[in-house]
Amino acid sequence: MMRDDSGCRDLENFLHAQIPITREMGVAVEESSQTRLVLTAPLELNHNHLGTAFGGSLSAIATLAGYGLLWNLLDDPGLHIVIRESSMRYLRPVKGEIRAICAAPEESAISSFRVALADRGKARISLRVTVEEEGEICMDFTGEYVALGEGRK
Amino acid sequence: MMRDDSGCRDLENFLHAQIPITREMGVAVEESSQTRLVLTAPLELNHNHLGTAFGGSLSAIATLAGYGLLWNLLDDPGLHIVIRESSMRYLRPVKGEIRAICAAPEESAISSFRVALADRGKARISLRVTVEEEGEICMDFTGEYVALGEGRK
Repeated sequence: MMRDDSGCRDLENFLHAQIPITREMGVAVEESSQTRLVLTAPLELNHNHLGTAFGGSLSAIATLAGYGLLWNLLDDPGLHIVIRESSMRYLRPVKGEIRAICAAPEESAISSFRVALADRGKARISLRVTVEEEGEICMDFTGEYVALGEGRK
Repeated sequence: MMRDDSGCRDLENFLHAQIPITREMGVAVEESSQTRLVLTAPLELNHNHLGTAFGGSLSAIATLAGYGLLWNLLDDPGLHIVIRESSMRYLRPVKGEIRAICAAPEESAISSFRVALADRGKARISLRVTVEEEGEICMDFTGEYVALGEGRK
């Protein structure tokens, strides 16, 4: 648990201020580093008509987890980061707290991404996020994110 | 505009009561039939750090639009409907109201789906949802939904 880390609080405050629906969803940052980002949200605010987590909330939190990890990796507020495409498989229902985990990709992928961004002012990276409960993967998400340097927006 | 249709109000009330985050997102039902479903949500509640629509909100609304169309097509509260997988491409930013449109698939796909559901108590259907603004597709979503008959949950 890195919940008391100021990086978690900073990211959580940023999300709640800049992306207001994250506040209504009760999104919290449990862990935040350049290697791993963990977001949580309570079921009470994010359930569906069946009493399990709403697929749209899972998708939104997974999308955010990818953004968060990429912000941590790049640590440059001048960059413009967007999601270009994503795909996800819903493997089993989430019955309690939503917990989305984005682990950094391999170092070689990060290096290629940084080189492309430096050379061309634009780069694309694929990030995987899993939503897990009791050691099982409930939702498996892959997102393609694009970073654009200043002036390339 | 079919906004005054009682089917729209019924679906909107159902969404807000059963999937509470839809209320916080300001999701409204603009059109609701067995051939087409249109959901909207205001940018003010769903913007991101760039002032355009948050990808997670777009994904959530598209997911809902597919659910809504399938509920309309099947019109059977005893069925259990879930999303199994989805993929989406973000083509251009949404700068104003979010508007997600799900048109019913071809009649042959609906017939196959109904036959499988009747024969096996379980069936899968692919639904496409587009988020459009000023005549342009901003996000293109495809979701695979599964319906399970009573007793097959």
